[in-house]
Amino acid sequence: MNYKIVLAYDGTDFFGWQRQPGRRTVQGVLEEALAKISGAPLAVIGAGRTDAGVHALAQAAGFKADLRLSTEELRQALNALIPDDVRVISAAKAGPGFHPRRSALSKIYRYRIYHARDVSPFVMRYVLYWPYPLDLKRMRAAARLFIREGDFTSFSSNRELHPVRRVLRSELTTRGPEILYTVEANGFLRYMVRAMVGTLLEIGRGRVSPERVEELFQGKKRTLASPTAPAKGLCLVKVKY
Amino acid sequence: MNYKIVLAYDGTDFFGWQRQPGRRTVQGVLEEALAKISGAPLAVIGAGRTDAGVHALAQAAGFKADLRLSTEELRQALNALIPDDVRVISAAKAGPGFHPRRSALSKIYRYRIYHARDVSPFVMRYVLYWPYPLDLKRMRAAARLFIREGDFTSFSSNRELHPVRRVLRSELTTRGPEILYTVEANGFLRYMVRAMVGTLLEIGRGRVSPERVEELFQGKKRTLASPTAPAKGLCLVKVKY
Repeated sequence: MNYKIVLAYDGTDFFGWQRQPGRRTVQGVLEEALAKISGAPLAVIGAGRTDAGVHALAQAAGFKADLRLSTEELRQALNALIPDDVRVISAAKAGPGFHPRRSALSKIYRYRIYHARDVSPFVMRYVLYWPYPLDLKRMRAAARLFIREGDFTSFSSNRELHPVRRVLRSELTTRGPEILYTVEANGFLRYMVRAMVGTLLEIGRGRVSPERVEELFQGKKRTLASPTAPAKGLCLVKVKY
Repeated sequence: MNYKIVLAYDGTDFFGWQRQPGRRTVQGVLEEALAKISGAPLAVIGAGRTDAGVHALAQAAGFKADLRLSTEELRQALNALIPDDVRVISAAKAGPGFHPRRSALSKIYRYRIYHARDVSPFVMRYVLYWPYPLDLKRMRAAARLFIREGDFTSFSSNRELHPVRRVLRSELTTRGPEILYTVEANGFLRYMVRAMVGTLLEIGRGRVSPERVEELFQGKKRTLASPTAPAKGLCLVKVKY
């Protein structure tokens, strides 16, 4: 049987999603728990391979297993076996053709910039603390330029074989002292959101103009782009199927 | 000059307020930073000696020092030198008679019970997760019985020389899935709030009746009281002067 689960996690103490020997990863703790439940090792596939320190409000994942548990029992058994900085929100049976990554229509990420003189110790694990001036109007204009189907090589960690992605939504909103950057795409290259946020911050600081975004798309070289924003501000908020 | 500072901290990674050799404590990191700023070792006195794992939204503290900085410069210098899970919210000069603990009129603590089937990984550091039934009406009635001037020995860790405290406020409210217990007193014995919350939970579960509170006050023995609720749900929210 094919299963789909939805997960929330605080990424601070994980070395990202992907299983690595000797490292605490989200995939790793899930596979360990599922091996205990099913009695046999099995592979969990995630919709998005979040990097070390990146959080998730609703990551999606899937696996194949023969279980005698109901989906609600599976959910509770998993939550009893995994550490409390990751939680299974829901578990369901999926059709035989379901693949967590390939079946996904789009993913939504959110980046939190805490734009105030002082930051609370209770949010510092989840935000980039930015006490310096930012020109929000320029950043908003630049954010709109990301909405396209295009080659995102300049916003990734390395040359990828298939660097074309379609960004459907790219916008800045505010919530109290926070600037929230929300981006939806049919897929993301490695470090793509953090490189986009890094560029938006450079534009907000007045170091480069919003037109810089167009130049970067033309350049297609990672070295042209801005510094990558820190992982801790980033969160995978939704996977659409 | 006598200084008063107000602090917020995430207590998770601290061994409490009080300086201890080889341990990471809030008093310890503050004294270390102030020694660098003032050029000489000095003692910081806290209004409340919070235990390991207990948080603060507005802990008050004080120290004597000869500084050439303005209070705002002091605040910023301290925040630059201390780790980001503790923040100085404000710094001010205080009169010569100011003593952070003795001058305090009252302190307010809040305990967060996350009363839902599932808990989010983003609050689990700050709440007691309680997925079991609770009779809120009984708990509310019991909470009111704590409002008194009385001997709180049965709600402390050991026999204290002066166990009489005056509780001014003791109430339960709800906020979304959370039950918040707020208590204000002219002072607190060690583990007092956590023992009171432990008792309220026993009453809410139906194990003992609200009248149990009166029996405990009469008994005056720590061994009579309920298990102490975990530190992580507790937060010092205000010190009144």
